Amino acid sequence: MKKTGLTIAVVGATGAVGKEMLAALESRRFPFAELRLFASERSVGKSLACAGKSWTCAKLAKGAFQGVDFAFFDASDEVSREWVKEARDAGAIVIDNSGTFRMHPEVTLAVPEVNGARLKDLGPGALVAGPNCTTAQLVVALKPLHDRYGLKRVIVSTYQSVSGAGAAAIEELRSQTGDVLAGREARAAKLKYPIAFNLIPQIGGFLSGADEGTTSEEKKVIEETRKILELPNLAVACTAIRVPTVACHAESVNAEFERAPDPAEARRLLEKFPGVEVIDLPEYPMNLHGAGRDPVYVGRIRKDPSHPNGLQFWVVADNLRKGAALNAIQIAEALLA
Amino acid sequence: MKKTGLTIAVVGATGAVGKEMLAALESRRFPFAELRLFASERSVGKSLACAGKSWTCAKLAKGAFQGVDFAFFDASDEVSREWVKEARDAGAIVIDNSGTFRMHPEVTLAVPEVNGARLKDLGPGALVAGPNCTTAQLVVALKPLHDRYGLKRVIVSTYQSVSGAGAAAIEELRSQTGDVLAGREARAAKLKYPIAFNLIPQIGGFLSGADEGTTSEEKKVIEETRKILELPNLAVACTAIRVPTVACHAESVNAEFERAPDPAEARRLLEKFPGVEVIDLPEYPMNLHGAGRDPVYVGRIRKDPSHPNGLQFWVVADNLRKGAALNAIQIAEALLA
Repeated sequence: MKKTGLTIAVVGATGAVGKEMLAALESRRFPFAELRLFASERSVGKSLACAGKSWTCAKLAKGAFQGVDFAFFDASDEVSREWVKEARDAGAIVIDNSGTFRMHPEVTLAVPEVNGARLKDLGPGALVAGPNCTTAQLVVALKPLHDRYGLKRVIVSTYQSVSGAGAAAIEELRSQTGDVLAGREARAAKLKYPIAFNLIPQIGGFLSGADEGTTSEEKKVIEETRKILELPNLAVACTAIRVPTVACHAESVNAEFERAPDPAEARRLLEKFPGVEVIDLPEYPMNLHGAGRDPVYVGRIRKDPSHPNGLQFWVVADNLRKGAALNAIQIAEALLA
Repeated sequence: MKKTGLTIAVVGATGAVGKEMLAALESRRFPFAELRLFASERSVGKSLACAGKSWTCAKLAKGAFQGVDFAFFDASDEVSREWVKEARDAGAIVIDNSGTFRMHPEVTLAVPEVNGARLKDLGPGALVAGPNCTTAQLVVALKPLHDRYGLKRVIVSTYQSVSGAGAAAIEELRSQTGDVLAGREARAAKLKYPIAFNLIPQIGGFLSGADEGTTSEEKKVIEETRKILELPNLAVACTAIRVPTVACHAESVNAEFERAPDPAEARRLLEKFPGVEVIDLPEYPMNLHGAGRDPVYVGRIRKDPSHPNGLQFWVVADNLRKGAALNAIQIAEALLA
């Protein structure tokens, strides 16, 4: 595989994650020579800057991936379903951030700090999936603790920003908030209910059958955490809540282990783990720290007083970066290494 | 004890809870004839309307509680420490919403729906404490489930509105949010950090010793939940987070029981329990429902997939109502009954 002068494609270039992709390609100095941007009909012809050049958005079409080394998919599940095969058949390595292929047994679901070893020996035509943004930051924080104490159970309640629902939801929070402050009614459009000064305890759709009452977002966190940590029977519970923040997802985590964790040691293990930054007593991570930055921030690390082998902590990360764009580029970097 | 024509005092009448007290006295048609309002220096002389009359704020002074039947304390811990004894000595029944006396072994900590039986036989000079707002709505939701399944462990992550930090914090969220929308810097004053579009994972101060890393708010939830449910050894973990909402606290709860709970039955038990309103699939409680209303709203009631005897749910209530003012008046009503 070529190591420099790469041709790369970004599908969904004008979306919330797509914009972060271009920023991350630039900041990580990803060794590309040609950048092909693909977007939906209404963005075709639009030019975006990356690495000192201007690149024009095109529509996906037969032959679009000829000569592409890496194709990053940051669009909808539908777009991935329709176009990933075309990209692989053209010989591109596909890194797909949609939910379409993550749980397929033959697809590597990768967070490089956690299961980067799984990326060895993948070459042209390979498909690697990136996890849900909520999962990504959770597994990064859990991995060093699992390695030391043996993870048995995770309970997570999330505080997810509107950026996870796309660029339109960010604009909706801003304009709705302005309306409420001006005494006007908050009207929901992209999200199901008003989000200004409100909390929405539903992300994704409600499932049925054995998962009745669970949302698709919560199910993703449960299944993807097990797959990435390679703990198929891990006990996981998740409650996913949309909160009126613009950037970053935060998570309140209660974890139980085989062996009793020591909070001071846990803090040191987290500090040493790649991709983690610890901000702890008397400070703690906030959305203000994480927005537009790469690390997964962990703090409020303390014993869980309700379980002898329990540990509690608070995780904050930019959901568009580690949760999507940055993670995808880290996957490509690992494949190049 | 007199049952009508009561003389009542509200200490802290101009604060966020004080305002709700006046609204609740009116809406519950509490049988008072005289209302004495006490406030800090700068509000002395201010007039407030309640039950069709205007009442003027005075400063607390020796003799202030002479002839008072019920004295509601909704001010700081310091004010309660200084003035509760005076009120009791004057023969008033004191209902104190501060944190000062809650955990005193001889003081009843009351949420009438849960432990109202403890209010029997209390008369003039008695002291009853109301719990922290976060505890109040939690124990109301837990009680019918505990009675049926036997509560063993509770893990709660909170989503607390700024109204819990007082009227100044509400104004701070509004003005800060306006600043951010206008591209100006968010400046914190009442709260430690900017709260506009941010989350602050600290409510109260940090404790030391065996509770290192825990906040005073989290400790209150743990201890008060045990005391009100009369389960001194109940395993409780709490993570308390300030979120950019104006009204209502919300809670993501994972509870474990002696016996496996059935979600459908749990829903029915909650529906029948006084003070609870269930909003469940395909809907769920939001701050939009709870603001300015009395019930504790419960929804997202479902199995906890990480524990065979676990149940998860989402609780929303107006923290100034059930969490403070309403609960205090319900205590007085129970004492009059």
